[in-house]
Amino acid sequence: MTRSLDQRFSVPFFYPVRFTTRLFDPANPVFRDAVTGQTGSPPKLLVVIDEGVQRAWPALEDDLTRYCQLHGLNLVAALSVPGGEQAKQDPAHVAAVQQAIDDYGIDRHSFVVALGGGAVIDMVGYAAATAHRGVRLIRLPSTVLGQNDSAVGVKNSVNAHGKKNWLGTFAPPFAVLNDLELLTTLGDRDWLGGLSEAIKVALLKDAAFFDYLEAHASALRSRDLAAMDHAVYRCAELHLAHIAGGDPFEQGSSRPLDFGHWAAHKLEALTHYELRHGEAVAIGIALDSTYAHLSGLLTEGDWQRILNLFTALGLPIFHPRLLEGLDDAPQPGSLLSGLNEFREHLGGRLTITLLSAIGTGHDVHEMNLDLVRESVRRLEQLALSPTPGA
Amino acid sequence: MTRSLDQRFSVPFFYPVRFTTRLFDPANPVFRDAVTGQTGSPPKLLVVIDEGVQRAWPALEDDLTRYCQLHGLNLVAALSVPGGEQAKQDPAHVAAVQQAIDDYGIDRHSFVVALGGGAVIDMVGYAAATAHRGVRLIRLPSTVLGQNDSAVGVKNSVNAHGKKNWLGTFAPPFAVLNDLELLTTLGDRDWLGGLSEAIKVALLKDAAFFDYLEAHASALRSRDLAAMDHAVYRCAELHLAHIAGGDPFEQGSSRPLDFGHWAAHKLEALTHYELRHGEAVAIGIALDSTYAHLSGLLTEGDWQRILNLFTALGLPIFHPRLLEGLDDAPQPGSLLSGLNEFREHLGGRLTITLLSAIGTGHDVHEMNLDLVRESVRRLEQLALSPTPGA
Repeated sequence: MTRSLDQRFSVPFFYPVRFTTRLFDPANPVFRDAVTGQTGSPPKLLVVIDEGVQRAWPALEDDLTRYCQLHGLNLVAALSVPGGEQAKQDPAHVAAVQQAIDDYGIDRHSFVVALGGGAVIDMVGYAAATAHRGVRLIRLPSTVLGQNDSAVGVKNSVNAHGKKNWLGTFAPPFAVLNDLELLTTLGDRDWLGGLSEAIKVALLKDAAFFDYLEAHASALRSRDLAAMDHAVYRCAELHLAHIAGGDPFEQGSSRPLDFGHWAAHKLEALTHYELRHGEAVAIGIALDSTYAHLSGLLTEGDWQRILNLFTALGLPIFHPRLLEGLDDAPQPGSLLSGLNEFREHLGGRLTITLLSAIGTGHDVHEMNLDLVRESVRRLEQLALSPTPGA
Repeated sequence: MTRSLDQRFSVPFFYPVRFTTRLFDPANPVFRDAVTGQTGSPPKLLVVIDEGVQRAWPALEDDLTRYCQLHGLNLVAALSVPGGEQAKQDPAHVAAVQQAIDDYGIDRHSFVVALGGGAVIDMVGYAAATAHRGVRLIRLPSTVLGQNDSAVGVKNSVNAHGKKNWLGTFAPPFAVLNDLELLTTLGDRDWLGGLSEAIKVALLKDAAFFDYLEAHASALRSRDLAAMDHAVYRCAELHLAHIAGGDPFEQGSSRPLDFGHWAAHKLEALTHYELRHGEAVAIGIALDSTYAHLSGLLTEGDWQRILNLFTALGLPIFHPRLLEGLDDAPQPGSLLSGLNEFREHLGGRLTITLLSAIGTGHDVHEMNLDLVRESVRRLEQLALSPTPGA
């Protein structure tokens, strides 16, 4: 009596990721090339700018306007939104971007251009992905973290129900344009914090890249732009390859690039986002590396190299909030509850990626809570001593 | 100076579409099979029910609860929402569904089950697709239009900014389960209205299916369930094949299955949704078929068969609102403005699918406004006379 039809298809996606500098220099064709090549009249551009970038680059709107005039681009409006987590926290910002999409008649062949930090790009991406079932999004990430990680991927999100990234979609961008010059506007915390994701992906996938980061730690810390350029490029390349080679829309359970992130997500919430994402990831990686070492998976030498690299880059490996409620059973508001929340976020089975060596990830499906507690205490001690691993 | 990475991947999608009857009869395994087969504990089910279906099937919640108990399914809650366009019009309904998703801890491996008309399925689909970047959605469409068209596809949406389907995503369901028995609960207008999409897809793709609909018009009109069963199945099959063989996420401009829809969308708005979608589509197809005939594309015989079939099924081919402002230049609130709105909706270039014969679509990129006006007047005359084409 039951009849069946099976629907099966694949949807191809393509987007260019360009690494350039001085994007709105009139002589730079990268932005123009990304939005032209369509038939008919020049498509509309609605640009949404992170207020933090605007402050650091007061001439931005003038530069953008002049660039569009010179290249015959149809800039219909430039809107500004607050930077940082606030962009994702207050639904008024999504509403404002969508109101502008409606007011200016942005359609599925027009462009929304998001210029800013990861949070602004995530928020604008969500607004663009749900308007008309998705208008074209060009991402111009202004931070290390955006350029090497979040903005080259396929996700967008805003916070809701008191939870980070509760609302979102998988929606590949139309193009990602990384302007190296933008990174010079960053404060030190954001300059360095973004390197956590580079260390993460090096640890999981590319020992030689870890060597590079180690060898250039002092240059990176002293804001050497060429060293950062390579770190961003290689990190983005590894992320892109991981996404394309895996499960881009995360239909399965495994999320190996979430190494260090169960604790990082929890720490961000516990510190009310006083910790930057990259800083929280540094601590999360330090914690899971310590756990891997204590559980016999990772050698002492590799473990020490990892902690030393964070320290050399001025990134934290510990935060006092890790200690709160640590000896109790996992309960809301303590680090250990983060494991269960992470399992729920994955949906069903817990998968935590650890390391068996620098450059080699190793999945486990259980964490020994006492060993997590011991790992936290080891990091507490090390944070007080100048020589990690000593 | 510019370096480039090109990101390219394909995302595979699969979902079963099942045609059954009495879905919550304890002996029917179709629903159980759709939600089991996962590892671990039974996944959570959050069921959202159209109030219209609840009224027509008062025992529904009891039947559902008993079915889940018998089959060991983890039904966490059954929520009801208003049916019809109201479901998509008031953002409170998306908020209520998402609040329940959060309250009951529905994750990416749990299920949201949407039972109702096309509007409810669209709205619940949007809520599910954006929560946690997409929780699994099972669609149980209760109308002809849902079972043969909207619910077997990959879109969801709600209205916003005063526009139909302004917010939405492309998000394939986890499964679609069509219960023939549900169709018996429909009023005549919804029973018949859903056939417009069957006629549409027959006209574009399958002359033999048009013959079937013609031969069974009287059975369909007198609510013969077997005839409807075949009409729904074949229409769904043609829609599924079209989606899989084309551009499922509409990355290009062409939307050939929108035949008759430019006028239909406009008429729905002009009549404040007093016309059902299927009724508006009947009129839209009648209009574009008349246009095709008057422009020399479609023979008089084919044109007459089309109008006769709508009439035999008791579907309208004309509405007085078509006449308002018809002789003026296109302006908001008149039919002709619908052409431009449709072009904007497609983004850029206008593509209107007409017919060159029954079973064969033919794209054009311009419409002669005077010929549209003449087509409206022909339909006005025909609506007053009992014999179309006479």
